[in-house]
Amino acid sequence: MPNTWQDIAVRKQKERTGRIPTGWLLSADVLKEAGNKTSVLDMPRKSGLLSNDELCITEDYDATALVAELGSGRLSSVDVINAFSKRAAIAQQLVNCLTETFFNDALARAQFLDDHLKRTGKPIGPLHGLPISLKDTFKVKGYDASVGCAAFCFKPAMQNSALVDLLFKLGAILYCKTNVPLTMMALDSHNNVFGRTLNPANMRLTAGGSSGGEGALLALQGSILGIGTDVGGSIRIPAMCNGLVGVKPSHGRVPYAGQEGGMPAGSSKLGIEATAGPIARSVRDCELLLSAIGNGRPELFDADVIAQTWEQQTSLRKSPTTRAQKPLRVGIVRTDGHVMPLPPIQRLLDDVANILRSPALPSWSPIEVVEVDITDFGPQVLKVFNGVMSIDGGNAWFDNIEATGEPLSPWLSTRLRRRPTKPLDEVRKLQAQKLELQMRFQDVWRESGGYWGSKDSKAKKGDKELDIIICPIAPHPVPLIDTFNSTNYTSAFNLLDVAAGVLPVRTFTEADTHSENGNSKPLNGWDKINRELWNGDRRSFVGGSMSIQVLVPRLMERKLIESMAVLEKALEPLRGNDGKAERSRL
Amino acid sequence: MPNTWQDIAVRKQKERTGRIPTGWLLSADVLKEAGNKTSVLDMPRKSGLLSNDELCITEDYDATALVAELGSGRLSSVDVINAFSKRAAIAQQLVNCLTETFFNDALARAQFLDDHLKRTGKPIGPLHGLPISLKDTFKVKGYDASVGCAAFCFKPAMQNSALVDLLFKLGAILYCKTNVPLTMMALDSHNNVFGRTLNPANMRLTAGGSSGGEGALLALQGSILGIGTDVGGSIRIPAMCNGLVGVKPSHGRVPYAGQEGGMPAGSSKLGIEATAGPIARSVRDCELLLSAIGNGRPELFDADVIAQTWEQQTSLRKSPTTRAQKPLRVGIVRTDGHVMPLPPIQRLLDDVANILRSPALPSWSPIEVVEVDITDFGPQVLKVFNGVMSIDGGNAWFDNIEATGEPLSPWLSTRLRRRPTKPLDEVRKLQAQKLELQMRFQDVWRESGGYWGSKDSKAKKGDKELDIIICPIAPHPVPLIDTFNSTNYTSAFNLLDVAAGVLPVRTFTEADTHSENGNSKPLNGWDKINRELWNGDRRSFVGGSMSIQVLVPRLMERKLIESMAVLEKALEPLRGNDGKAERSRL
Repeated sequence: MPNTWQDIAVRKQKERTGRIPTGWLLSADVLKEAGNKTSVLDMPRKSGLLSNDELCITEDYDATALVAELGSGRLSSVDVINAFSKRAAIAQQLVNCLTETFFNDALARAQFLDDHLKRTGKPIGPLHGLPISLKDTFKVKGYDASVGCAAFCFKPAMQNSALVDLLFKLGAILYCKTNVPLTMMALDSHNNVFGRTLNPANMRLTAGGSSGGEGALLALQGSILGIGTDVGGSIRIPAMCNGLVGVKPSHGRVPYAGQEGGMPAGSSKLGIEATAGPIARSVRDCELLLSAIGNGRPELFDADVIAQTWEQQTSLRKSPTTRAQKPLRVGIVRTDGHVMPLPPIQRLLDDVANILRSPALPSWSPIEVVEVDITDFGPQVLKVFNGVMSIDGGNAWFDNIEATGEPLSPWLSTRLRRRPTKPLDEVRKLQAQKLELQMRFQDVWRESGGYWGSKDSKAKKGDKELDIIICPIAPHPVPLIDTFNSTNYTSAFNLLDVAAGVLPVRTFTEADTHSENGNSKPLNGWDKINRELWNGDRRSFVGGSMSIQVLVPRLMERKLIESMAVLEKALEPLRGNDGKAERSRL
Repeated sequence: MPNTWQDIAVRKQKERTGRIPTGWLLSADVLKEAGNKTSVLDMPRKSGLLSNDELCITEDYDATALVAELGSGRLSSVDVINAFSKRAAIAQQLVNCLTETFFNDALARAQFLDDHLKRTGKPIGPLHGLPISLKDTFKVKGYDASVGCAAFCFKPAMQNSALVDLLFKLGAILYCKTNVPLTMMALDSHNNVFGRTLNPANMRLTAGGSSGGEGALLALQGSILGIGTDVGGSIRIPAMCNGLVGVKPSHGRVPYAGQEGGMPAGSSKLGIEATAGPIARSVRDCELLLSAIGNGRPELFDADVIAQTWEQQTSLRKSPTTRAQKPLRVGIVRTDGHVMPLPPIQRLLDDVANILRSPALPSWSPIEVVEVDITDFGPQVLKVFNGVMSIDGGNAWFDNIEATGEPLSPWLSTRLRRRPTKPLDEVRKLQAQKLELQMRFQDVWRESGGYWGSKDSKAKKGDKELDIIICPIAPHPVPLIDTFNSTNYTSAFNLLDVAAGVLPVRTFTEADTHSENGNSKPLNGWDKINRELWNGDRRSFVGGSMSIQVLVPRLMERKLIESMAVLEKALEPLRGNDGKAERSRL
């Protein structure tokens, strides 16, 4: 008799718990205390399980600083991986963020790396000894990549995903994988096998998705560098929900081959290519990962990846075709023309634009701010994105789910249903529309393109270009569980294949609740739902991260990182005292 | 009453002839003399229409040398474009290689460029004043891009192709477009509107296709730099047939958007992307074009193009991840495992391998030669290529042709027929297979991949890598009209998306006719047909160009050009006296 999904889930969760050493289990008292709290960010420290050394290893470094200690031998890989494995296990017990763990394999590898360093005096690569956590979609040989689908459980991967092989080559240690939503097409990381991942900073708010397990684990410092994937916002939304930095590269930058997406091979070629990228606590940690990958011959691991070292990529500072020190030109996009951001998001963008305009800004070079209006453009991108994402009509995933009789997750239940597969000719048309929009979006970057300034000054003729665009990540703050609204602010930039990063600016405060929506008519059903989020209990948003999205043209990841580093510093004054305290606790 | 294709062809040819100034028409005597000759390469000189200055402009420079004269003002753009326009008109009358001409527009532009240079003292761009000819698939505003299909005639383009706009920005002068086969899927450039383009070096041999008009025009020095497109060999085959250098870049290097391919928009996204590239008389002329395009912000003209300047591309000399001066490591692929090359092609490869192995070779650095065996691989690539190319079942083209009742061209008539459009799931599978083959082909470049050396030494474990691969372009010499056989030697590298160049080595001589096929059984029907080419009149091949193909990994165009420059010099001794004479006459 075939297993029911319930049986499979029970066995799978038992396996997961069984892999946590008994000494790492939280006491009943600690669990009870956690259960009564809104934020559990302080619970790893309060758990009593982490030694002072382990607290220091997991809290006092970012990945860049840690890898320097590891490479020099001042910290041992064994000590570091033990600290992070233990803290990840604690995080799992608090917010249910893990799927697979391979702590023993990680320990053996750490021992190998320590021995290698001792023997040769040299680190094995630029990520020597660094613990890296992975979204469950990555395949690690010998372990499931079930992505929370019962039908995929207990079918261990036969080989590693391309990026897993590359990370090993670079010296990293892999020790755990993290939770995702069923189908990866939802924005809360809930599935029937592993359950729901919670937001450790505020258990009522969503942890985001689909790389939500990564977000929650990073926020609890059970990981120092995580890797997510993004086809519509799945790196950026959890980064936003957990106050983290995240980067979604363009297709062709980071190996993506060999992941479990629940779809038959080749599907992405007809639709949109998902990309893999870092979720981290600092911009420089994203650079650490992306530069190591770029310089690690990534093209040998995935034929879709471009052979281009980090140094070969275009730099903000030394543009190959223009003079060196020119102002950083920032476009501000206030709205996508589909869903108007709620007042606190509008205020955040105002604050960011104002501080960048401030002449006193202590930055590496002058910054120029330009208002950019893409309201004519946003809804068209959404339409094509929705078309491209529904090519197979959800049939592959419904087959996966129905194989064991699973129900849909709550958020999906009203949104996903089987539809007919699109005819080839419609797929072709969608691809043509995608390319046309990508072409048209090029005009947005250019003064002469017709998108700069207010509507009545659209005939600009100059030859200036934007370096980056700043825009919202969502039209609302981090929302309550299962209430994430439109994803056009993220998914548009998957369709357009530009590189995009998320940068936390400050936290949502009491003061943010006081501004009101205007009286204009809602633009559409999505805009109406969005306004209703603001008419509910606004205080529920307090403490959530307020983050911005940063865009650069396609495949300009190095320029993105360099710009985000400028912004990280320039926006510091906005963090405020509360924010600073909050952040230092993070 | 709708026009018949015959009516349209008559009108179109009349239009074409009408655009040639009367003073540029060949006399009856000259035409008669040309009609009796095997080679008409000397006829432009003998025509009596070209002044000494015009002969000098069209014969004594390559594009690199010419653009230096133009940029410095030592030659005027007006004089240069007049010379090439006249010589192109002569070439048209000899071998029927043109479709559209815009000599007057070109002259006006030349005048503008001369004025600009005089006024400012500066050339307008790196291609200032350089005449460039284009395959008919490129759209030039106000002129047809009929690609020889009656249904597309007298429908002038509303806007330029992306590359046309970029070439204008770079300072080039466009003055004519060149002939193609009906459907662009044949290897002889014949269609019902413009007729057949002939090979000026040997009127019995094919001029190749689909950029056959370019090949013939370049061979007659009616153009100094041409641009073709290639989805299965359409740059490389005419380059081979006309003794020219040609480069097929990987997708994403040169703007391709906005061409007429006879297929609805978006089709290539589901199949294989064609690419545009140079056909020229020297390797450095290909570099001139590719570096100008690379440094001209090509990504702004076509969203599929990668932002990467020529200097940002990986160089053979300064590999970013390895030490500078290492040996050029050359893999030799003798056969694709599908059709065994005829004896003269085998001999050519032998000669090339031997000279590269020669220790006395006066080259920039040592060369290492490795035998590479891809016979397991070639037939699989062909199968997937054929699948991908027949996704729409030929229906779009049959609709185009039947709209005016055109017959198929001779070569196509036995090869092309309407088939059902493939179902979406099959298209998806083909895309997956394509990517899998691209991944597997990466192993071919690496010592540890299992393709180096003879079959019994396949377990090599080193970490060496090939810089380039040398292989045939076709399994036979330049063949008689309508007898080109398998295209797997070219089309395989479109499916694999590696960059590929063609380099002429020598001409086919009497001595080449003496070697015999072995007695082994034909591998398949294609191999059998190929052997039959050798059992016919072998002397028909005499005088045809013998060329090799050079491959580099995806998007390594700069490395390709640098390697081809090394080979161009290294293989000079093979050219022989006859070859040298032949070539200097070219």
